[in-house]
Amino acid sequence: MKNILIIGCGLIGSSLLRAIADRKISKKIFIYEKSKSNILKIKKLRLPCTITNDLKKIIPNLDLIIFCTPLGEYEKMISKINKYLSSKTIITDVGSSKKKSMQLIKNKLKKGIYWTSSHPIAGSEVSGPEHGVKNLFLNKWCILIKEKNTNKKHLKVLNKFWKKIGSRVAVMDSKKHDTIFSMTSHLPHLIAYNLVKTATDFEKQKKYNLIKFSAGGLRDFSRIAASNEIMWRDVFFNNQTNILKAIDLFIKNLHLFKRDIQSKNNKSLVKKLVDTKKVRKKIIKLKQDINRPDFGRS
Amino acid sequence: MKNILIIGCGLIGSSLLRAIADRKISKKIFIYEKSKSNILKIKKLRLPCTITNDLKKIIPNLDLIIFCTPLGEYEKMISKINKYLSSKTIITDVGSSKKKSMQLIKNKLKKGIYWTSSHPIAGSEVSGPEHGVKNLFLNKWCILIKEKNTNKKHLKVLNKFWKKIGSRVAVMDSKKHDTIFSMTSHLPHLIAYNLVKTATDFEKQKKYNLIKFSAGGLRDFSRIAASNEIMWRDVFFNNQTNILKAIDLFIKNLHLFKRDIQSKNNKSLVKKLVDTKKVRKKIIKLKQDINRPDFGRS
Repeated sequence: MKNILIIGCGLIGSSLLRAIADRKISKKIFIYEKSKSNILKIKKLRLPCTITNDLKKIIPNLDLIIFCTPLGEYEKMISKINKYLSSKTIITDVGSSKKKSMQLIKNKLKKGIYWTSSHPIAGSEVSGPEHGVKNLFLNKWCILIKEKNTNKKHLKVLNKFWKKIGSRVAVMDSKKHDTIFSMTSHLPHLIAYNLVKTATDFEKQKKYNLIKFSAGGLRDFSRIAASNEIMWRDVFFNNQTNILKAIDLFIKNLHLFKRDIQSKNNKSLVKKLVDTKKVRKKIIKLKQDINRPDFGRS
Repeated sequence: MKNILIIGCGLIGSSLLRAIADRKISKKIFIYEKSKSNILKIKKLRLPCTITNDLKKIIPNLDLIIFCTPLGEYEKMISKINKYLSSKTIITDVGSSKKKSMQLIKNKLKKGIYWTSSHPIAGSEVSGPEHGVKNLFLNKWCILIKEKNTNKKHLKVLNKFWKKIGSRVAVMDSKKHDTIFSMTSHLPHLIAYNLVKTATDFEKQKKYNLIKFSAGGLRDFSRIAASNEIMWRDVFFNNQTNILKAIDLFIKNLHLFKRDIQSKNNKSLVKKLVDTKKVRKKIIKLKQDINRPDFGRS
């Protein structure tokens, strides 16, 4: 490619920028970033890109636009670029929730323009361009969304693009995507946030210093519960229906767990604990986590 | 010390064995272990200890006995050693729940014998003597339980013992202990088990292959949900009352979270997410986790 534009250069955007530059995928990489503090960081880090505000000039010559902003920014941003877009430019995003955002995109985007959505399953609890790494997507899944109206050519190019970045690509529709990730990602984040909230409420209530004893389990949740609040608010609002269903299923199971503890149901409780243990092995076998105790951190 | 007996040589017992040997705390370390497979592993690893069955001969000469079995084994084990015990031997354990187990100990132990309970806040999702490490307790908290009837001299010796092992010691009563750890450890484990259970239920129901996409959050929970099932069953049953209260508080908060998502209450939701983020910083400042994104695993 000759020209790629990354809109929003935080953790994901700057990791993509680094990955694209490292693999020489594009001659030029443009960055559109609204945060002044991020712009200063990008300059200080001397990331290999051109920071631009001149969308009118840049957009007609682009091969690829990648939205790396929170979902809530899409609408405003589309209205800024809409008039300059042409059908030859491939447009994608890296948002974590698809169905609702794609409806919005479809409504906002001018006729004849295609948007082919991506979701790289990679991230971190830290935000900002200073935390980006060129191998963030290496060996990670990237989901490409294919619907009835998807431009097959664009899909094919993006498939190649993510593979060059180092990702493994899976293709599915937005409905399936949002169902799967409501369970493997959105619910876990919400549960982590809720656990840390519950612990801090309890700390206030009991006037004990709890947090200093978090090494027994709480600390793991606190990492996920430190994720970017704007990104996650947007995900929770966007994938609302699936997440609410996931919460209900979680609460239903929690009541069953509670019943086992209340009635000291040895057999039922041990079965649950043994069954979940197997999932860890499966996750490691599928290379979704490292095969070292305690994440290798100690 | 001259002679220490470790009862139960799994992850914790064998880590203690290694730590005691490394720091030359005792001339001899005896191991009592009922699992034949563990005994074979200990021999193969050439751990610096004497494996024994002859409790009658060993116990009268011990300075310290450390119970490292699951809580559910205490009763049986006490009845095996009770008649050989004398008041000069310090007895401790490393159990994660205290109030109920200490009542049982008090009821079972013959008169004039003291038991001074410890809880090192250290562990892993892996079990067995092959996973033990000499620095498992280094810079970790160890809680010592002090009640009205606690032997002050034994408490003092144990305080020194854990500090030699490398731990930081905090002293509190069993009630406070069980309240704190119901929130910082027991609830997080239960929630992790429940999340993985919910995801596998959902996988079966939807017939999607979910687990392969666990890198978005689920994988973190799967680590904790791979912890030893017998140990955790015993903790859930032993600290039943506190855990049930913690579950209720968690569910109450989860309903509030759900309400924020349902009503798209931006302000309330973002406040929750921002507040929990601060806890991560606190945990790192308190050295309860490592200061690297993603636990440094990627």
